[in-house]
Amino acid sequence: MSTTPSTTWERLRAHLHTTQLIGGIHSSLYFDQNTVMPAAAAGWRGEQLALLAQQLHERQTSAAYQELLAAAEQELSAEAPAEQRHNLRLLQRELARQSRLDPALVGAIAKAQAEGYSCWQEAKRNNQFELFAPALQQLIALRLEQAAQLAPVEAQADGTPRSAWEILAQPFEPDISQQQLAALLVPLRELLPPLLEQARSLPSGSREAWDLSEADQDSLCAELLQDWGYNPERCHRARSPHPFSCTLGPDDFRITTRVVEGQPFSAFLATAHEWGHSLYEQGLPRSGEHWFPWPLGEATSMAVHESQSLFYENRLGRSQALARRWHPRFAAALGRDVWESPQAFWRDLNPIRAGLTRVEADEVSYGLHVLLRYELELALVEGGMPVAELPEAWNRGMQELLGVTPANNTEGCLQDVHWSEGLFGYFPSYALGHLISAQLSETLERELGPIEALLEAGRDAELGQWLQQRVYPLGRSVNAAELVQQVSGQPLSPEPFERYLRQKLERLAG
Amino acid sequence: MSTTPSTTWERLRAHLHTTQLIGGIHSSLYFDQNTVMPAAAAGWRGEQLALLAQQLHERQTSAAYQELLAAAEQELSAEAPAEQRHNLRLLQRELARQSRLDPALVGAIAKAQAEGYSCWQEAKRNNQFELFAPALQQLIALRLEQAAQLAPVEAQADGTPRSAWEILAQPFEPDISQQQLAALLVPLRELLPPLLEQARSLPSGSREAWDLSEADQDSLCAELLQDWGYNPERCHRARSPHPFSCTLGPDDFRITTRVVEGQPFSAFLATAHEWGHSLYEQGLPRSGEHWFPWPLGEATSMAVHESQSLFYENRLGRSQALARRWHPRFAAALGRDVWESPQAFWRDLNPIRAGLTRVEADEVSYGLHVLLRYELELALVEGGMPVAELPEAWNRGMQELLGVTPANNTEGCLQDVHWSEGLFGYFPSYALGHLISAQLSETLERELGPIEALLEAGRDAELGQWLQQRVYPLGRSVNAAELVQQVSGQPLSPEPFERYLRQKLERLAG
Repeated sequence: MSTTPSTTWERLRAHLHTTQLIGGIHSSLYFDQNTVMPAAAAGWRGEQLALLAQQLHERQTSAAYQELLAAAEQELSAEAPAEQRHNLRLLQRELARQSRLDPALVGAIAKAQAEGYSCWQEAKRNNQFELFAPALQQLIALRLEQAAQLAPVEAQADGTPRSAWEILAQPFEPDISQQQLAALLVPLRELLPPLLEQARSLPSGSREAWDLSEADQDSLCAELLQDWGYNPERCHRARSPHPFSCTLGPDDFRITTRVVEGQPFSAFLATAHEWGHSLYEQGLPRSGEHWFPWPLGEATSMAVHESQSLFYENRLGRSQALARRWHPRFAAALGRDVWESPQAFWRDLNPIRAGLTRVEADEVSYGLHVLLRYELELALVEGGMPVAELPEAWNRGMQELLGVTPANNTEGCLQDVHWSEGLFGYFPSYALGHLISAQLSETLERELGPIEALLEAGRDAELGQWLQQRVYPLGRSVNAAELVQQVSGQPLSPEPFERYLRQKLERLAG
Repeated sequence: MSTTPSTTWERLRAHLHTTQLIGGIHSSLYFDQNTVMPAAAAGWRGEQLALLAQQLHERQTSAAYQELLAAAEQELSAEAPAEQRHNLRLLQRELARQSRLDPALVGAIAKAQAEGYSCWQEAKRNNQFELFAPALQQLIALRLEQAAQLAPVEAQADGTPRSAWEILAQPFEPDISQQQLAALLVPLRELLPPLLEQARSLPSGSREAWDLSEADQDSLCAELLQDWGYNPERCHRARSPHPFSCTLGPDDFRITTRVVEGQPFSAFLATAHEWGHSLYEQGLPRSGEHWFPWPLGEATSMAVHESQSLFYENRLGRSQALARRWHPRFAAALGRDVWESPQAFWRDLNPIRAGLTRVEADEVSYGLHVLLRYELELALVEGGMPVAELPEAWNRGMQELLGVTPANNTEGCLQDVHWSEGLFGYFPSYALGHLISAQLSETLERELGPIEALLEAGRDAELGQWLQQRVYPLGRSVNAAELVQQVSGQPLSPEPFERYLRQKLERLAG
């Protein structure tokens, strides 16, 4: 790229840079809101976020920006680097998406989301699905309209049209298709229930219930991050009601955790999880045509993001080697050893049993929770299933897949926030993250040796470096499927995940 | 004001509302930067703040805004409330100020401030005044140019022109004049040194040096705020390198403190001080033509703001009654009683001795630190004193006023940040705050009885209510001098402050 600030490309870069500055301001307010903002400030903060969203939308769709993109394409020489062309393509695609949508529809969706969220809270609090049903029906209708408006710019590369659900899923998981999901997720329906059954006979962990004070959990989390290269010059960790990770700028990475009473591993594992997300963001490409403010410097998909957090949470945080390292630390914090062996401590870190709640699910049952939601979304969005049938379909699915039935809709189909805002197409990424994490881990182990052995030898940093070299720098140059193909040499498949689970269950039984 | 959103007045309100939203975003980023932002993010955050400052400037000076103000004036009927007229006058005045300044000068000042701050840091670190002198000379020249450009719109109400220093002081202290300061501050030159001399014979406080852990200081600060009506629904307290208070929105008030090793009252008194600032902001007028986003709903001056923080820090926090209340709490936190009597604890809260540093100065010597700076500013800005003579003039002044001489310029004329950014006209407000606080306190005591007796009876809330009813609602409807006249029925004078100090010294000796 030219370094003369007067070229179209420099002007485009400057435009995107300012857009990123505003996006970062939005993230800063979000972070503040979810960590320290007093409750009474919610209304004012909402107005500020709406103002910034409006500024961002204006910058991303204005006639001036459209002309800038067109001029940049004109200026592109035949010898321009492929990355430059790729960045332009991603920007044009996003512009096309934004431009296709009728502003009236955008407004109607925003309004329906606010109403949906409010009705859902009320319905969940009172266990009255009927309070939420009309809002959900309305959100489905609006999302179908959105998919219809986007259809012309959301066709596949070969011209094949995408289904409504697929179109809605594109922002989270670029290029995802129902065909891919049939090959990747549907096999979990056969694989996982027998594994869950097998897990029922596993020995238990600690001899007694135990818990740790907030202060103790906090120091253990700090120690974990210190072991894994947390740099306070670039990172900040805070508390929030729901753990999250967010990037506020090219050198400003925040993560949050919470302490849950009676679940003393919750903050510890959430810290590992959010740190995995953060490391991916910290490792995104920073030079050439990539980094801030160009699209190629961004995360490529929700599933890839999730694979990185799951790597730190499950492959490292729940490993036997880490259990050996942390057993004495937890026992010291607790003031007594309720496990008596690292193996019992490790079992405590890996409880596997079918439950009602997705966010509390273990590695084996998690995929079944997602599968249920995916199938129900298809039925609602594309199959014409009336919203009124959702509770019964949910409960039937839970019984079929997990062998448990919710006592009410609050712990059933009202448990997740996503549908209350009409977010369809989001859930599968969570499960794909497990699959991607497993497949990348197999590749890593082929190249560096078993993860357990590396951790046992204190070579945590090498594991991190491998991801930093092989995965993070790809940014948006590849989608999730291409990333896995490129790093592992194989198409994404559920088999590594299956091998990983089988091996883990064997070891837990041992 | 009309409630129809289509009137000029409604459009003006909407414009100001959005300006306040952006101002609040700026404050949020500032708060984040000074409490939790990692160091490496400074550059990116600087760009974000500059972008918001640019948006604010644009909104406050654009042709569209000028037309809106002009139209609002046109629309103003003869029966319009006086407040409406007053708001308009304040907006027009600010616009005139912004419009008079040559944008090239504004840019040059911003650049000189950045350079000045950087040179000052270097000069202070290395105790080399010469490293800062050229930048200071440059800042003075630019500020003189600024004063010259503003002179036509900064004349007094009767047309008398203001001096350069007075013009620079207007943003901090509206309507301040050298004549007023001669009557208010110069008497301190005679009053305070004998009081300082008198304080040399005061008995000491604790028997031994003592300190408290961060956690203990933190809980004592939390307890203090709880006693004084801290509401976590609208407030948030954090840590920062320098204590401050800031308002992020109409229902979002933040204060910060720091723990200083070896100064175990520092966080406690700073908490009281910042809480006083915050309560003033929380109590600003909220209805009619006043509150967000109108100017009349804003704080009126730095001195009034400071008077409110000093009331909580000195009149309450350092009172004998509070000492009796907090002596057992501090002794409990410390695990032993190093004072043996509330009176000794109270003396510990009120050390009075001449020192080198303004920010560590007690109530008696503080005014002398300010007087020195005020006289030096006049000499530099209006008296043609060469910058090279500043160190010697500073040291001579310290010896004359306080009887101490800095060992070097780092603890001498380089100690404060203000001049490094060319902030002239700011210091006197600090000292005026002491005078205003004393005069308002006398009025309060005339109406409610002695503060000590009210505190002794646990009637802290009544003290707060008095300020909430008599002082806070005035907003910008009066300047500092008018506020004092209106509340106390007398012109502002140094006499109540003198009476307060004499009485305090007598009691400390008793």
